Amino acid sequence: MSLREEALFMHQENQGKLETVSKVQVKNEKDLSLAYSPGVAEPCKVIYDKPETVYDYTIKGNTVAVVSDGTAVLGLGNIGPEAALPVMEGKAVLFKSFAGVDAFPICLNTTDVDKIVETVKLLEPTFGGINLEDIAAPNCFEIEERLKKETNIPIFHDDQHGTAIVTVAGLINALKLIGKSFSEIKVVANGAGAAGIAIIKLLYHYGVRNIIMCDSKGAIYENRPQGMNKVKDEIASFTNREKITGSLQDAMVGADVFIGVSVEGAVTEEMVRSMNKDPIIFAMANPVPEIMPYIAKNAGAKVIGTGRSDFPNQVNNVLAFPGIFRGALDVRATHINEKMKQAAAEAIAELITLQEITSDYVIPKPFDPRVAPAVARAVAKVAMETGVARKQVDPEEVYKRTFTLSAIDKGE
Amino acid sequence: MSLREEALFMHQENQGKLETVSKVQVKNEKDLSLAYSPGVAEPCKVIYDKPETVYDYTIKGNTVAVVSDGTAVLGLGNIGPEAALPVMEGKAVLFKSFAGVDAFPICLNTTDVDKIVETVKLLEPTFGGINLEDIAAPNCFEIEERLKKETNIPIFHDDQHGTAIVTVAGLINALKLIGKSFSEIKVVANGAGAAGIAIIKLLYHYGVRNIIMCDSKGAIYENRPQGMNKVKDEIASFTNREKITGSLQDAMVGADVFIGVSVEGAVTEEMVRSMNKDPIIFAMANPVPEIMPYIAKNAGAKVIGTGRSDFPNQVNNVLAFPGIFRGALDVRATHINEKMKQAAAEAIAELITLQEITSDYVIPKPFDPRVAPAVARAVAKVAMETGVARKQVDPEEVYKRTFTLSAIDKGE
Repeated sequence: MSLREEALFMHQENQGKLETVSKVQVKNEKDLSLAYSPGVAEPCKVIYDKPETVYDYTIKGNTVAVVSDGTAVLGLGNIGPEAALPVMEGKAVLFKSFAGVDAFPICLNTTDVDKIVETVKLLEPTFGGINLEDIAAPNCFEIEERLKKETNIPIFHDDQHGTAIVTVAGLINALKLIGKSFSEIKVVANGAGAAGIAIIKLLYHYGVRNIIMCDSKGAIYENRPQGMNKVKDEIASFTNREKITGSLQDAMVGADVFIGVSVEGAVTEEMVRSMNKDPIIFAMANPVPEIMPYIAKNAGAKVIGTGRSDFPNQVNNVLAFPGIFRGALDVRATHINEKMKQAAAEAIAELITLQEITSDYVIPKPFDPRVAPAVARAVAKVAMETGVARKQVDPEEVYKRTFTLSAIDKGE
Repeated sequence: MSLREEALFMHQENQGKLETVSKVQVKNEKDLSLAYSPGVAEPCKVIYDKPETVYDYTIKGNTVAVVSDGTAVLGLGNIGPEAALPVMEGKAVLFKSFAGVDAFPICLNTTDVDKIVETVKLLEPTFGGINLEDIAAPNCFEIEERLKKETNIPIFHDDQHGTAIVTVAGLINALKLIGKSFSEIKVVANGAGAAGIAIIKLLYHYGVRNIIMCDSKGAIYENRPQGMNKVKDEIASFTNREKITGSLQDAMVGADVFIGVSVEGAVTEEMVRSMNKDPIIFAMANPVPEIMPYIAKNAGAKVIGTGRSDFPNQVNNVLAFPGIFRGALDVRATHINEKMKQAAAEAIAELITLQEITSDYVIPKPFDPRVAPAVARAVAKVAMETGVARKQVDPEEVYKRTFTLSAIDKGE
């Protein structure tokens, strides 16, 4: 069987990938009286009196909704909520497998920003966090921003921040390798979708000041006459301060870092040659990168990352989101703030020691069993330090517990 | 430990009662490529081309949402969505334990009819059915009616129909015992909430023509000047055709059957004595019935049912909803229609043979392992016969599979 056939068979044989299982048994009258009437009235009454105890007595404290409108699913585009369901189930499977988070897919039958925001707010009582997934730009930005303001649970658009966190983790180690700092590098990004925007914002937080972002119309600059939107206006307000115009090719001259979240073949060998010494290339277009790693290497690239598992330095979101939500849930966080995202990036980067860093190893492997525990520990710690935690925990306990909950191969 | 303490401890120890579990393992890169990218794209593409295959490749076909706004929870009333969560989790546990249905609690942060209807419609892609739960009357009627029209999945308000189905099942057997038919009896019901209304409607479908429904203002009749609403107007249009006015006590004179879904102590010994020979009493107020069984018996009642597990003939919804959704899901039903509800009531009744029926045994026990399988079989069969099934199945296979899926004590 080909992978295609095997995947199809697996989904059909199991009728989906998730199951809702009872943690308590109901085999007889006694069981029933505890799990349901009349015993269940007790936690109800306690929660009614003290709303915060909903985290103690219900699934809320360990449960995340994976919410999508099906408008930007994998490389498939706007395929709608039903066809998106296998992906959201898969995401839920990863939450559970990597970090013991109970996640449930919520595929919404609308693409209207107001309705999506309203629906998620109405769902808030049940969920301890919301992972937004595969929602097209620019809607995804507004949905996330509004939900962060209007709810009291973590809201995290993984296509933006998961990718940004892992990319930055890789860049932290790549810069160690070439001996440069964030403040001195020139970064050129191609693709102003969800991931590109988030990467640029996170890099700015890290002190990068020389950034040029390009879209299909070339370099983005303040008051560019065409192809702008609210988010690009914001990007233009703190990048490309020299208001350079022109194509991606023009922008890349002298750059230290290229970040691609665009399309196959967007970068040529010549463009890499035009970059600064020891260029770093993250070519994350899927399934075919902006430039193939062997071509980039031939043109002098020092570090090359892609979205693919068959090349070194895979930028895989699974390095970030399971541990981020694990840490956020463990402290009952109200938000996932910028510091928590930075802590996640640094926790991922630090798993590779200075001695271990090579051109082909700036990002840990997706199945490195230390990743989710380390990210969870860092995120929980910073959540407590930055005042978004409702509960205090020992970060080391978060690490140990996450390691135990993880169901991936741990070499045991 | 008291039951109270034990229930509280159990909920806290487990941090809720449900877990979302992966049916496939993701331990390594190969697993990941099947459950997630790139393999997951295959079922997505198939569903995009043929939307009905969402039932083949995803959880939709076995997943029900237990939706509540927390306005009428157990005997606790309007406690809100967070405090209602333990009950909805418990309901999901029962779905799974009795019939292998994956159910997920959805507690909504609104009591607005339009918003609840809209939200459930937006959730439709993920769920194969909706169990409405603990939503106060009269909102529950409008919500259910609208959702039945505006969605293509089964919508079932259990507080109405679950109670109605089990009550009617008990009545079918009670009438056999006293040798009367539905068409000749006089039924008096007290309590015009969700359950009372649904029972009266189902009895009307069964041919009962002499019905008087009472609320706190006494007998309901057409154009009664006060305390009416849309649903009571509807009830008044086909019950109490003689427009009898007066109290419950007045209405009960000469009645064959009393149906109580009201309050403790609503019925006196004298009222039972005023009924026809061999009166049948379903006194389902919780936790204390309208009249205690020994008092009713002393006053001549032939059959007495209550909502309590410590008396004979418990009207427990768990006899109905797990099998009903099991049967509906197995045929991918678009609706749960009246015929399917009747089939469920008859399937429950028929589990007690004519020889077995006694005053104390007109309703099967909640943990009779034949119940959910028999209900599922009957519901699936009638769904196919009445044209609401998207898939044809062998009803006997439905019975066997449900029996296998059930996790209650089966005497094996």
